[in-house]
Amino acid sequence: MNQATQALQVPALIALDWGSTSVRAMLVSSEGVVVSRRASSMGVAHVPKSGFEAALLELCGDWVSDLDLPMLASGMIGSRQGWREAPYLAAPCGPAECATHLTAIRLASAPEKAIHLVPGVSLTRADGTRDVMRGEEVQVWGCPAAGASSFVLPGTHSKWVELDEQGRIVAFRTYMTGELFSVLRAHSTLRWQASETASAVRADGDFELGVKRALASSSCLSSLIFQARAGALFGDVPAHGVAAFLSGLLIGAEVASALHEGTPNRSVVKVIGDLALCQLYETALRLCSVAAQVLDASDATTRCLFRIAGAAGLLQGAGR
Amino acid sequence: MNQATQALQVPALIALDWGSTSVRAMLVSSEGVVVSRRASSMGVAHVPKSGFEAALLELCGDWVSDLDLPMLASGMIGSRQGWREAPYLAAPCGPAECATHLTAIRLASAPEKAIHLVPGVSLTRADGTRDVMRGEEVQVWGCPAAGASSFVLPGTHSKWVELDEQGRIVAFRTYMTGELFSVLRAHSTLRWQASETASAVRADGDFELGVKRALASSSCLSSLIFQARAGALFGDVPAHGVAAFLSGLLIGAEVASALHEGTPNRSVVKVIGDLALCQLYETALRLCSVAAQVLDASDATTRCLFRIAGAAGLLQGAGR
Repeated sequence: MNQATQALQVPALIALDWGSTSVRAMLVSSEGVVVSRRASSMGVAHVPKSGFEAALLELCGDWVSDLDLPMLASGMIGSRQGWREAPYLAAPCGPAECATHLTAIRLASAPEKAIHLVPGVSLTRADGTRDVMRGEEVQVWGCPAAGASSFVLPGTHSKWVELDEQGRIVAFRTYMTGELFSVLRAHSTLRWQASETASAVRADGDFELGVKRALASSSCLSSLIFQARAGALFGDVPAHGVAAFLSGLLIGAEVASALHEGTPNRSVVKVIGDLALCQLYETALRLCSVAAQVLDASDATTRCLFRIAGAAGLLQGAGR
Repeated sequence: MNQATQALQVPALIALDWGSTSVRAMLVSSEGVVVSRRASSMGVAHVPKSGFEAALLELCGDWVSDLDLPMLASGMIGSRQGWREAPYLAAPCGPAECATHLTAIRLASAPEKAIHLVPGVSLTRADGTRDVMRGEEVQVWGCPAAGASSFVLPGTHSKWVELDEQGRIVAFRTYMTGELFSVLRAHSTLRWQASETASAVRADGDFELGVKRALASSSCLSSLIFQARAGALFGDVPAHGVAAFLSGLLIGAEVASALHEGTPNRSVVKVIGDLALCQLYETALRLCSVAAQVLDASDATTRCLFRIAGAAGLLQGAGR
């Protein structure tokens, strides 16, 4: 961007990606370009219920006081444990429905200013089961649209998300894969086997063996993970490879289930998230003969929040 | 038993059920009757590798020194973490094969005396997966025989075991159900939901709902357990019922998988273990239209060890 272009970037929105463990604040221009960014560890899990306004002002109080800008936030900040509960919007839904269901909170210290919260998305399936997400929906909507598509967002709670031709979320499913890996490795009898490996699991031969075992098995995951003990006992997996093998079992079971359950014969799945984790999912998808398209979604949330702010009329008059 | 009968009970065997967390010692007569019993918490997990002889003598040193009896032990005492590794016997196998594969350890303090360890049982399936057990095999063999039958031994690591007409173990499968429940409840994000219930889960409506959800689902367990969060958020499950619901999800998934995988169209499954836990499995089996036969297996291990000792020739001359 040359200087002439940069000079045109007038701030128009404070966008906040406010999750459980951290918060990122972006100052966005009227053209949708990020002109400044800040981050802190004041996620929802680290701030008392009454402390969110103070946390906001600590992170970007100067933006709030000096610039008369709308504020829009997504993520766990809208959960029951967050600043205020922003009720879930039922799928199918897209950014347009989102824009008409924002939750406004007036600041106690400046009642003329308000922060708006994006709703989470909920799903009730035909069998009565439920699912929820907060934050992942704006990440998906912020990615370049290309008709109906399937996404996976690997992590503590992986989300598989289906978009229709109009870019609306029509279905999604949560897998507690990352969390299962963490608690099994730290607290279960498998910790003896899985502790010898360094933190980061790589898509090596032990990981691939785990994925293949999961794909070949029709048994329940609670049986499958015992392979990390029994396989190690018989030397099928070396001691230093048990964590990678266990990760392969868990991710393999997730990918097989998700492709079976929710992904309508797509040959490509878009993968968003931590790059090392994306590579594990890329490997598991390849072993299922499905291509992975790893996307750089670092500004996807900001793009979507800007779009929702526009659709909600929040940008009118801002940044002038 | 009247006094005349009791007078005939000459000790013939010291049988030891030596597990991870505890050890039980039984003095068994030449008729196979338990004439005395002791227990301690000196399980394999609580005793250093070099301390097993001392633990034995602390528990029943008087029996060892005063009576010239054979000693036979089963359970984790024969594992790599135990006194000495008693190599696994590959299924299919029964007590007769077991009797010819004992591991003898001479006591350092009395080299003319030896303790014998029963082997564990291993399985290698056609798909390359492995399974192992130590201790459950003698429990199953010690139950009254009645031709081919299916057993489940619920617990930290549940075992489903298939016996053929000759009473040999032909197949088995481990499910880490109890351990998953513990680590999820104590260490995962589900702890917030599942902590409000008392320790003991009962087969109530919330438990049954969990089982039914598991039976209706074709999705992976890592997705299913998220229902303990999403269902609670929407009030499908009351806060005080989340632990029972989670237990139902996990046990339901195990039972469905085990009936699908390994149990050849049996209308009855024999259930051995802690009574409260057996009742949960009985409920889950009933919801699968399978009858449960809860067995009192409190002396099953002793009965089987006595039988193996006889087959191994250890009882010859003993107790005279």
